[in-house]
Formats: sequence, structure tokens, C-alpha cells
Amino acid sequence: MDLKEKALNLHKDNQGKISINCKVPVKNAEDLALAYTPGVAEPCLEINKDYNTIYDYTSKGNWVAVVTNGTAVLGLGDIGASAGLPVMEGKAVLFKAFAGVDAFPICLDTKDVDKIIETVKIMEPSFGGINLEDIKAPECFEIEKRLKEELDIPVFHDDQHGTAIVVLAGLLNAIKLVKKNLEQVKIVINGAGSAGISICKLLLLAGAKNIVMCDKMGALVEGAEWMNEAQAEIAKVTNRNFEKGILKEIVKEKDVFIGVSGPNVLNAQMVSTMNKDAIVFAMANPVPEITPDEAKVGGARVVATGRSDYPNQINNVLAFPGIFRGALDVRAKEISEEMKIATAKAIAEMVSEEELSEEYIIPKAFNLDIAPNVAASVAKVAIETGIARNNKVTPEWVAEHTRQLVK
Amino acid sequence: MDLKEKALNLHKDNQGKISINCKVPVKNAEDLALAYTPGVAEPCLEINKDYNTIYDYTSKGNWVAVVTNGTAVLGLGDIGASAGLPVMEGKAVLFKAFAGVDAFPICLDTKDVDKIIETVKIMEPSFGGINLEDIKAPECFEIEKRLKEELDIPVFHDDQHGTAIVVLAGLLNAIKLVKKNLEQVKIVINGAGSAGISICKLLLLAGAKNIVMCDKMGALVEGAEWMNEAQAEIAKVTNRNFEKGILKEIVKEKDVFIGVSGPNVLNAQMVSTMNKDAIVFAMANPVPEITPDEAKVGGARVVATGRSDYPNQINNVLAFPGIFRGALDVRAKEISEEMKIATAKAIAEMVSEEELSEEYIIPKAFNLDIAPNVAASVAKVAIETGIARNNKVTPEWVAEHTRQLVK
Repeated sequence: MDLKEKALNLHKDNQGKISINCKVPVKNAEDLALAYTPGVAEPCLEINKDYNTIYDYTSKGNWVAVVTNGTAVLGLGDIGASAGLPVMEGKAVLFKAFAGVDAFPICLDTKDVDKIIETVKIMEPSFGGINLEDIKAPECFEIEKRLKEELDIPVFHDDQHGTAIVVLAGLLNAIKLVKKNLEQVKIVINGAGSAGISICKLLLLAGAKNIVMCDKMGALVEGAEWMNEAQAEIAKVTNRNFEKGILKEIVKEKDVFIGVSGPNVLNAQMVSTMNKDAIVFAMANPVPEITPDEAKVGGARVVATGRSDYPNQINNVLAFPGIFRGALDVRAKEISEEMKIATAKAIAEMVSEEELSEEYIIPKAFNLDIAPNVAASVAKVAIETGIARNNKVTPEWVAEHTRQLVK
Repeated sequence: MDLKEKALNLHKDNQGKISINCKVPVKNAEDLALAYTPGVAEPCLEINKDYNTIYDYTSKGNWVAVVTNGTAVLGLGDIGASAGLPVMEGKAVLFKAFAGVDAFPICLDTKDVDKIIETVKIMEPSFGGINLEDIKAPECFEIEKRLKEELDIPVFHDDQHGTAIVVLAGLLNAIKLVKKNLEQVKIVINGAGSAGISICKLLLLAGAKNIVMCDKMGALVEGAEWMNEAQAEIAKVTNRNFEKGILKEIVKEKDVFIGVSGPNVLNAQMVSTMNKDAIVFAMANPVPEITPDEAKVGGARVVATGRSDYPNQINNVLAFPGIFRGALDVRAKEISEEMKIATAKAIAEMVSEEELSEEYIIPKAFNLDIAPNVAASVAKVAIETGIARNNKVTPEWVAEHTRQLVK
């Protein structure tokens, strides 16, 4: 049986992947009188008196909405909100399995930015956080920006920031391995969509100084007229040497190639024009920009991809479950840039000096220490920067809580 | 420890009442490759090709949204969407415990009818059915009406129809007991809000001919100017003798009193003016229109209330779990009037001729045969009336399926 058949059977045999679980018993009239009428009136009245008690008396604080409109599902594109549901259920499964977060798929049958924003805002009472998923650019930028401004619970677009965080984690270790440093390496990012731009922003924030972004039309350079709004904005703070040309030209004498573009756009010959000890992150899925073997032929020293069948998988699941776990546990108002960088460092630190090698720059997804460490790091930053609202918990408590939930 | 303290502790100790459950394992990379990328792309593509396969490959077909805006929560009134969350979580618990239905609370922070309708329509891809809950009249009428018209999944306002169905079930048995018949009995319904009007409509549909509705202003009578739109409409098909006056006058020589009003509005003296073998359903909560003891003093033969500490509890939980179970299993387009009447009859039939007595006209909530019988009856009607879209299942299969889920 091949993967396709196995995957279809798994989904069909279980009629999907998620169901509800009751945390309280309903075996007799007394149970009913406490969980439902008349007893349930008491927590209602408490919340009505003091809104913050909603986190004590309901499960709101552990629920995340996985919100999509199905316009950019995996590599499948705009397949619609309904066809995206298996992915959103899958995401809910990952949230639960990797960090004990209860997530529910909210598939919205609209492409209207204002309607998506309003819908999410209106249903906020049910959720402790919002994970935006598989919404195409440029709509995803405005949706995330406005929801972050208008809601005071964490809002996170995983396709942008999850990938960026794990790329930064891997890059920190790869750079350490080749004994270069982030401020000095020359980086080309190929693919100037939402993921590429988000990676670029996070790398800049983490200290990178030399980044050129590239797209099908060539290098993004300030003033070029073919760029969209997001690209024009990022072009102002990248490519300060005003390099022009297509990837083949731009990749020359770079230290790092980061691809979030398409299959086979890089080859060994192009890699051979990069600087010594080149780092290649070829993350197009399922077919990467270049295979690890061919990149090595071209002289690359460290290669990472998005695939689980090669070494060094850049996998979002290293980041988002622990991030939300930490944010929910301290009741953070948002997921800040500092939290993202702390997450990348926490993931990078999971690989010890002794373990670090060309084939092992990033931990494996099933390492059960990852989410506890990420959650604790996120909690620590939230507490230190004053955006935590639950001051009863410490980072150590969050780590232990996460460990209990995933063991 | 009193009920209040116990209820608060139950909610606090568990941080609410619901969490997500994963139906598939995520223990290793292969699990991940099937439940998430790359395997998950396969069901996405199937659904994109043929929308109906969403019921095979996702859990949509077993999820019900419990939608509220918190404007009429229990007897507490307009406490808001957030403070209503404990009730909605409780409802989800009941759906699961009594019929294996996965329900999720959607608390909407708005009173705007159009926004509520649009929000529910936009999120339809995630759900197999919509249970409206604790939305105040008259908004609840328009919301339900338009959602029924505009969605092709079941939409059900439990506060209206759930109560009406269980009242009809109890009334069928009470009337049988006193050897009267539904077409001939004279009925007064006190309380002309959404529940009262809904009860009235279902009783008319079931064959009742003589109903007078009463509210604080007195009997609803065609042409009276103080009535709202819904009241004016129901007045056209009730009170054909044009009785006028307050409850005290209207209740005289009636066979049946049905109260969905307020505490202590009926007394023994008033009951004594009713016909012989009077039936009194006093369902105001927590304090009924009259206590069973006082009603008996006034000469009532059968008394029912909404409370679990008196005999004959009129409890919605007898109806809604099985109704949705049946509707979801046959993938019904809607919950029709015929399905409601079939539900009432199925519930009434749970009390055998031998068991039927003044103190036992309606089965107890924890009788595990109720939901299977209700679900099968609903499925049967759906199949017979052509609104079932899953023609692979029979009523017998539905009964057995329900039994397996609740055992």
C-alpha cells in the first residue's frame, strides 16, 4: 500500500482526526446538576462579574482556533476552505500531541479580508489564541496585522513565522558549525512570498546584515517597479549593494542560500559559485530547490530541506506547539518578536556542541524536550517584557506543565 | 459543601469541561506523514474533486457548533457571550455523553442579527450541524429562519424546539393517562416568548385544536395591539373563541396548563377552576409556576416541572442529543417538523403502558435507550421524507451506532 492509499484509509477509517473530550463526568443527576443546570449558572455569574475568571472556569485559555480560508493550502494552492479541513484537523492533532494545546479548525468560506477579520474577532470569546493557517499572500499580512492590533490574545500566522523561526534555529547552528557569524554572512533568500519575507524580517531582527531577496523576476532592489507592496517595503532594508539580476547571478559569493520557492531552481554549478562552506536550505516541498546530494556536489557543507527523509528537516512543528503552550500558560497578550527569537535559540540549543554536525543542525520533531524548552523560553520573555497576564506561573512551571501534557 | 461551591470547584479544578481528542496516533514520523504532510494532501485533493467526500475524510459530519451570543443564558438573561461559555461547554458535554456528538462552543460577541447569520454561514465548512443556544427573542427567530433557508445542514434552536418536543412527549402520555385526547383538550400556555410560541406551534402541528396563549398582558387574541410580531402571528391560529383576560380568568375550564413563564404565577385556587383531571406543566426554572404539591391541592392529576428533584422532569436532554445523532448519521439537510413530532413520540413510547402513572409520564434522562430510539426515529423520517443524503444507513444502523457511542 502506498502513502496515498494509506493516508486516505487513515482519514476514512477514523472519519477525520479529531473529536471532543469531556473533562468532567456525566454519569448521574448530580454530575448533570454541576456541569449543567443549575450549577453551571455559578461560573457564568463569576465571569459576568470578573471577565478574567473565564480563564479559571472555562477551557478558553487552552483553545486555539486554527483559522484558514483555504487559499494557500500546503503546496496545493487555493483549494477552498472545505478541502483545507484535513490539514486544519492535522494541525489540531499536532498542537495536542506536541504540546497539549486544544485546537479547533475554523475553515472560513470567504476570501474577503474584512469578513475574515470580523469573524475571528466576533468568535474570540471561545478561544485563547488564534493560529492563522494557509491563507495566501498578500491577504495574510493584513489579516494578521489587524487581528494583532484589535485582539488582545495571541495571533500567529504559522506559515510565515513558524518557518522563519525554525530557519533561524537551523541557521544559528549551521553558522556556528562553519565558524562564521550571522552579522557577516551574505544571505540570499529565494522566494519573496509571505514565508520568504517573514524569514528575512526575522533574520534581520536576529542580527543578519547582508540579505538579498530574490524572486522569479530577480533580486528585489529598492525602486524596482515590478514589486508588490510587501516586497517594496523589504527591499528598503535589504540588498544595500543594490545587486541586480536573476538567482544564478545573485547566488555568487553568498554564504547562505535559503529557498522557499520551487523545485530544482538551484543546481550544483550555481552552488559552486557560492563562498566556501556554503549553507543551503532548500525548503520547497515536496521537491526541494536542490537535492542534498547535488548541493554537496556543488560544494555545500550544510544542507537542510523541508523533508523528513533527508537530514536537517526544517519543520514548523518544532516551534508552533511550544510557542502557543508558553503563550497560553502565561496568558500572553501576543506573540512578540522577542518570543520568536527566543524560540529559535531554544530550538538551536537542543543540539549540543558535541552533537552538532553537517547532518545534525536541528533537533528531530519527536524529541519530547523541545516543546517544554520552547514553552519555557516563550514564557520567560513574556514575563520579562511585561506581556504576561498570568503572573502565578514561572518558566520552570511552564516547562514542567508542558512535559506532563506530552509525556 | 453546597451546590454553588461544588459547581465552581468542578469548573476550576478542570479548567473548563472540554478538550480535543485525537482519533489518530502521532507517535513517529510515519504517523506524521499520514496525518499531516505529505499524506494529508490526498484527502484535500479528494474533497476538492468531490465535495461530498468531506464527510468521509474529515470529522465535519460529527461536529455541531453550539452557537450563542449570550443574550438569554439560562434564567440569567443577557450576560454576554463570554459569561455564557460555561453553559455552551456544558451543552457540548451533554451532546457527547448522551449521543456521541462532537460539539464545540461558538460564543459570538455581537447582538447584530446579520453578523451572527453571516458568521455562522462563513464557518459552515467546519460543522455538520448548528445548534443555536440561549439567543434572546425575537432575534432568535430570524437567525434560525434565515440560517435554515441559507444553509443545507441542520439548524436547530434548542431553547425553542427542544423544550417543545419534550413537552409534547410528556403531554401525549399525560393525556393518555387521563383518557382524554389531544384534539379535544383545552390548553393554556402561559409565557408567550420563544419557548411558549414554539411549544404552541408544535402542539398545533401534532393535532391540538384548542390553545390559548397568555402573557403578562393577558390572553393573546387576534387584533390586540400590544403583541409583538411573533405573538400577533400565533394569535391568528390560536384562541379561536377570542377569550380575553389574565391567566386567572383564562385558566378556567382548561384541561392543560403549560407554563414557561415565571415563579408562582399559578396557585391551587386557580388550578381548582380547571377541568377535572387537570394536567399542569410548570416549567419555570429554578422556581416553577406552582409546586407539584400545591397543584395537587388544587386538584391537578398530573404535574411536570423542569426540575430534577420532582417527578416528571421536562428535560431537553431527552431530545437534542438523539435528534442531532440521527440527523448527522443520515446527513439530513434539516431538522423538519416531522422529525420533531417523531422524536416526541419516540420519547413518549419509552414509558410503557404498565409503567405509565401520574408520577411517571416521561423517561429519566439517564435511560441509555432514549438517544438510540430518538436517533433512529429521526433517521427514519429523514429517509422517508427524502431529506437524508447518506442513503447507506438504516434506522436500525443508526440506533446501534448510537448505542455503541453512549454505552
